[in-house]
Parts: sequence; structure tokens; C-alpha cells
Amino acid sequence: MENPVKIEPMAFEDEAVLHAKWPSIDEVRASNPIKGVAAKSEGGDRVLEVEWASGERQVYPCMWLRDHCRCTICFHAEHQTRLTDFMELDLNIDIKTVTVNDVDQTIAITWTDDHQSLYYANWLLCNRFDQTEADPIRSIEPAYWDASTLENDHMRTFKYSDVIDSDHVLYDMQMQLKRVGLVLIQGTPAEKGHMMKLSDRIGYICGTSYGTTSQIYGSSDWAFGHPSYGLEYRPLHSDYSFIDDSHGVFAMHCISQIDGKGGEYFFVDGYKAAQDLQKTNPEAFQRLTKPCWEGRVKAWVVNDKHYHHSVSAPIKLNEAGEVTKLTLCDFWRTSVMRLPVGEVCDTYRALRALKDLLYRKDHTFCHNLQPGDMMLIHNHRLLHGRKDYHDTKPSTVHLETGYFKWDSFDTRMRKVKMNLDKKEKSNNSTASKVNGHQSNGIQR
Amino acid sequence: MENPVKIEPMAFEDEAVLHAKWPSIDEVRASNPIKGVAAKSEGGDRVLEVEWASGERQVYPCMWLRDHCRCTICFHAEHQTRLTDFMELDLNIDIKTVTVNDVDQTIAITWTDDHQSLYYANWLLCNRFDQTEADPIRSIEPAYWDASTLENDHMRTFKYSDVIDSDHVLYDMQMQLKRVGLVLIQGTPAEKGHMMKLSDRIGYICGTSYGTTSQIYGSSDWAFGHPSYGLEYRPLHSDYSFIDDSHGVFAMHCISQIDGKGGEYFFVDGYKAAQDLQKTNPEAFQRLTKPCWEGRVKAWVVNDKHYHHSVSAPIKLNEAGEVTKLTLCDFWRTSVMRLPVGEVCDTYRALRALKDLLYRKDHTFCHNLQPGDMMLIHNHRLLHGRKDYHDTKPSTVHLETGYFKWDSFDTRMRKVKMNLDKKEKSNNSTASKVNGHQSNGIQR
Repeated sequence: MENPVKIEPMAFEDEAVLHAKWPSIDEVRASNPIKGVAAKSEGGDRVLEVEWASGERQVYPCMWLRDHCRCTICFHAEHQTRLTDFMELDLNIDIKTVTVNDVDQTIAITWTDDHQSLYYANWLLCNRFDQTEADPIRSIEPAYWDASTLENDHMRTFKYSDVIDSDHVLYDMQMQLKRVGLVLIQGTPAEKGHMMKLSDRIGYICGTSYGTTSQIYGSSDWAFGHPSYGLEYRPLHSDYSFIDDSHGVFAMHCISQIDGKGGEYFFVDGYKAAQDLQKTNPEAFQRLTKPCWEGRVKAWVVNDKHYHHSVSAPIKLNEAGEVTKLTLCDFWRTSVMRLPVGEVCDTYRALRALKDLLYRKDHTFCHNLQPGDMMLIHNHRLLHGRKDYHDTKPSTVHLETGYFKWDSFDTRMRKVKMNLDKKEKSNNSTASKVNGHQSNGIQR
Repeated sequence: MENPVKIEPMAFEDEAVLHAKWPSIDEVRASNPIKGVAAKSEGGDRVLEVEWASGERQVYPCMWLRDHCRCTICFHAEHQTRLTDFMELDLNIDIKTVTVNDVDQTIAITWTDDHQSLYYANWLLCNRFDQTEADPIRSIEPAYWDASTLENDHMRTFKYSDVIDSDHVLYDMQMQLKRVGLVLIQGTPAEKGHMMKLSDRIGYICGTSYGTTSQIYGSSDWAFGHPSYGLEYRPLHSDYSFIDDSHGVFAMHCISQIDGKGGEYFFVDGYKAAQDLQKTNPEAFQRLTKPCWEGRVKAWVVNDKHYHHSVSAPIKLNEAGEVTKLTLCDFWRTSVMRLPVGEVCDTYRALRALKDLLYRKDHTFCHNLQPGDMMLIHNHRLLHGRKDYHDTKPSTVHLETGYFKWDSFDTRMRKVKMNLDKKEKSNNSTASKVNGHQSNGIQR
């Protein structure tokens, strides 16, 4: 024997967060234990077939099992790292002996190279290839909204101190942003620096040519400013449309506001508008799923070091044909359209058709940003605009903004879920002990 | 008349950098002036047809021309921003009158709403829809390499102080990274902080869960460290394989090195290996263009706030079927494979086939990183690994690393090109004046 099988408990347990359900070994033993195993051939490859008490069967290829051996030689549990080299993996590996331990609910395998591996039933139940349950974070479904459903059902307001102090509130807020695409946080101190504090909660911030965070000022006496800085009307747009790889989460914190009228932000659910377009005008929808106009920004306001240029379809689909990103921004839209000229006019009409849906009054939600407000916006889904200010008295608007990748946001959310799940599990086991004692107490 | 046509010179000129060639008005007048224009209908839409002296004709739809009016009412030249609202654009706009100015090489249009616009011939020549020339930055072709062609033809070394001080050297280096995917900079002071100084030259840095830049240490007395920190052998991999949206440019600066043997980095051109696989084993290639294994990282080493999780195809193609990104990292590869179980073994064999090509000795380039060396690596194209250290004396390796998005890198490169082009143009015009004076001098 090459190795005695040593496995550290966290070798498997730390993967629980990748799965919608992660039964404990006790639960598996009680409800659906391993009934039997058989080494066999399938499609010319050696596999292990596992049968569960429920009658379900699952085939596990030997090379996959060997690749995922979690013994301390093959896997570093604390780092969650494979220690073996893929080039050393024997793709013809076969099972010499296999035994089931009914008490531990484990399967022990000795391989043809005499290496030994041990697999836990709950991990095997969760790793079932295309039968694997959906990822708990990725499978969060967006809830489409219009103005009235947002106001009546979906809109949620959070208290800044709760977001900072409570993981429960934080997770709730993260879920809200994933589902609805818009979050309002109130009671943020009206001073710089809270974007970085938020970042510490929701995920690492992503720099742009404007810096790590941006200070956006507008003064009531500016006649015309830069699109980021002026007080004029801003049509509906997504931010950073001028980079290919635009940021998915946009956060803005209002530190001071103009003394005057107007300046309300308005928001619309771009996924819903795109879906409506697909139903009512599929030809326009199709046109907008290809790159049409290119985008650019000469970022000279901050420094004169960058000239952004992007090629994005207004509506981006994933491989399943679902809308994943809208990229729309008229003020940065260039003249470059790499299309046959005969398609140009239809493309303009397609964009107009989409915008007609986006600008419907019953689709847009307005909010007048007050000092202390922080808004989180799904920048690949929502479009936002701002009405012009008018009747202003001498004053200044100051926003601190920050951008986050969905990668960064999701990675943080997964960790928060992991911590909450662990806490709940430990509370439950404490509670069941407490309940146990109590019932003992009653029996006495 | 609603407006006298006012156009600021930079309204058009600032777009020159988006085009491979941008003739001056003088050049157009001399070589290929406007021969005639005609307002007409095409496919039911109103267009302007322009004929050039060369006999070439180009049709410009009226709505496109009106949308790109560069008068001071419609366009802010300094910000390069459209001031009009797309919702106000009349898609049925037509030409009332059109005149050509042969001296200025401009076309003046009065529209049916009495708005007036002016278009320059060079801008029109550059904006020809699918006849538009390729973008000068995006069209840079990768030069595929193996160990010998890299060493003999492609590998370039730059001096740190030149990269910092000279835009010519900087652009040369940027071009090298785009073409070859690997750059060695020597003579960087062996101290922290030069990653941010480099960032000031090549583009804004992108934070990760490891921070804005990362300090990577390894000590000769560590038995096993984290994959980022240990001294063990590291198989070929790309960095940040555990996020969906991995960073395209990876930079590392060697501040101190282990006193001992081994520890060489090795690099391979993943695009070439993928191309070779496509030729020799198209079925394996196809399999790897779909998501296979999911990736993850529990980023506890830095802080315990993130749990990364990614779903990427090992080989990512663009819409044209070209390889744009390789995502390979065995130590972070998870057991989650959302495939029919019958495809699992073929997927393992496909990965092995790709790796056999990647690990060919005549494909890999080695470099022993010395204090003062900085390497820039195309992280979507190259795979890198590191041999193990051995026979070490008490010592520490210290690398400072940073990550950049291609968006950020390209945007900076475009600006550097823009500055160099302008400088060259102004040098040429000075030179021609100087030459003019000289020839006058000779005549006298």
C-alpha cells in the first residue's frame, strides 16, 4: 500500500457552498444511504456504479474519481488545492478493490496502482455531472419589473449601518441586487470613504481610468459640463459602455445635493424591455444582438492618458440565448458601424424600437437622491438617466461612485452565504441539543 | 435657418486614432477629392451618394448623417460627446439642399427641418460602414511562436527606464505584448512600488481579492505553501482561472530571489497549442470550447472574505471562431462537471491532448527571473509554470504582481499611438518647412 488514506474533514465540506443542498453524512445515512457499488465498463471506460437506497444509480468514471482523490497526498484541504499533476494522472486507472462503510457512508477504493482513496456519500450525491443541482448563486433568477411592480413588490430599502454590521442584512441586500438589479441604502454618513467601506462588505472594487473610486461634482453655476459632471438631462444609458468589459455593478453615494428642482434619477429594467422587444419585434431584437455602433471615450477630464474604444452588441446574449447585458449610451456612441450600409437604417429603427420600450412611463422608476443615500445598480441590466436640474441656488452635488465586477460581487456573496449556512448549522445543532435537554427536562 | 454651422476642428480630428489611415484634407484634395453628390432613395430610405475622383461611390443614409452632425449644437468637440437626444432624431429626415465646397473638401447639407450640417471629406472617406478599414489596435495580429522562433525572432527585452521615459519604447513594448504575449523588462529598481509606476504607463490596474497589487513571498524554509506562495513545482496554468472574467495582462516584478537552484519560469504559446490541437484533433478541440470543469478558490490566505467560483471553457472562441482565451489551472479545478457522464472521459482525454501539446519541450520558453526583472504576460494566451526550487540557502523570493484588463491596456496604447502620430505629423510639417527653407537656401 502506497498510502494510508488520510482525509481532513474540510477537504469535502468546504465545497458545500457550491451546491444548493449539502446533506450531512447523518442525513444521508438516515434517508438515502449507499445500497451497493459495482466496478464495471461503460462505453469502453472503467467506471464505478453507485446505487442508493432510493433506487437511483449514478456512474462515476474511474479517471474522474482518481483525479478528485482527497487524501492528504493528493489534496491540500486548507488551501482546497489539488497537489497532483494532471500529466501524471493515469487515464487507464482501474479499481482493484472497492468497499462500502455503511456507518461512515464512505466508499474506499484501492486503485490498480495501489493508491487508496476514500469518498464520502454526501459529496458523491452532490457531484452528479449534468444531474448536479444548479449553483445556488448563479441560479438566482431575475424578477422583471415595471414601475408599479417595483414600487409595490420589489423595491427594498436597507439601512447603511445594518449592511455594514449584519451578514443577514448584507445577504438580503445582495440577493435583492441579483434579483431586482436595484438597491437603495439609506443613512450613509454624508462624507467620502464609504464606498471603500461598502467594498469591504460587497466585494473588491475595480478601478477605472477615473481612479479606484470617483468623486463626481456638479455645480449649480456650470453651463455645460462633461456627461459625468454636468447638471443637464442625461438620457437612459449604462455606465462604462465604452469598454468591452464594462463593470456589472455600479454604486453611487450621495454626499451633497444641488439646492433646486429636478435632478431625479430614473431607472428601467433593460432585461424586461429586451424581452418585450423580442416578443413584439423579433427582427429588431436580433439586429441588436450583433455589434452595431462602436463606442469610445477620450477620458481627458481625469487625465489625458486613455482613449477608450469598445465593440459591444446593444443586447448581449449568453449561449442559452438569454439576455445577459445591455450596452447603451448615446452620448459616447461613435459613427463607426461595421455593417453593410443597407442594414444601417434598419439598425437605427431597431434601436428606436428598443428605446420606445425603455422610455415608457409605466416602465421607469424615479428616485430623488438625498445626501446619505447610496444606490447599487445592476449596470448590465438596468439603464439609468437623470432629469435636468433647474431653479437652482448656489450649491454643489457630490457623488462618490465605485464599480464592481459581478465576479467580485458573487464571490463575496458566496462567502457570506457560506458563513450564514455554517452559523445556522451550528445554531441548529446547539438548538437540538438544547431541545434535547429540555425534552429530557420535561420527561423528568 | 436654425443654426449657422459651427464646427470645432477637433470634432472630427480626435477620431483619427480609431482609423488605420486618416488622410488630411490637403491629401484628399490632392489625391481623391469629392467628384459629386446626389440625394436619392435606396431600399426605401433617403441617402446621400458621394462619388470620389477615383470613381468610388459610397452611400450614406440621411439618418446616420444627421445623427453624426458635428456642429456645436449637436456635438461637444472637447468632450467628444453627442449633445442630441436619440429620441429626438427624426428617422425620416431628408436633404433639402446639398453643396460641395471643393476647396475645403466639405459637404454642407440643409435638412428638411432646416438644421444645417457640415461633413469633412476625410471623415467620410474613413467612415464607410463595412468598407471601413480595420481598427489599428484591434487588428494587431498575434505572431505564434515556439521555443526557437521566440528565442530567435520574437523575444524582446526592454529597459525599465526607457519604458518609463520614452513613448516610442513604450509603444514598441505594447506592440510586443499584443503580438507575442510576453515582454521582459530589465533594470527595474529592486523595491516595491514599480508596479504602480508601470500602471501609470500601461493602463489602470485592476484590483483582485489579493489587493491592488500583490506581494508574493516565498521562503526557502517553507515545506509547502499556498499555490501562490510556495516554492514547489507549478504546472502550466493561467492566472485567475477561478473568476469568469479573468484578467488579460499579468505583470510580475522580481524584487528578491531565492538563493539556490531551480525556480525557472516556463511559458508556452497557448494560441499556437490550441491551433495545433484544432488541426490534429478537432474533436478534442471542440470539446474544450465548452465549459467542462468549474473552478474555484477559497481566498483565505489574504482575507477570509471571498469564495471564487468560475465557469469557463478551457478554450474560448470569439464569434469568428478564433481562440481568444485559454483558461487552464489544475490546482484550482473542481469536481463539478455539468456534462452528461458519458462525455466525461472524452473530456479528460481532450484536456490531455491539449496538455501534451502545451508541454512539448520545443514549445516552452524558460526564463530565470532575476531581481530587477519585470515580465508582462498575456494571461489569456500564454500558460506559465515554474520549476521547483532546490539546494536552497536561507533566502526569500519577493515578487510584486499586478493585473490589467485588456480594455485598460488597449485604451492606454491607443492614446500613446495618438500622441506619437500627432508628434510625427507636427515633426513632418516642421521638417517640410525646414526642407523648404533649405531648398530655398540652395536656390539662392
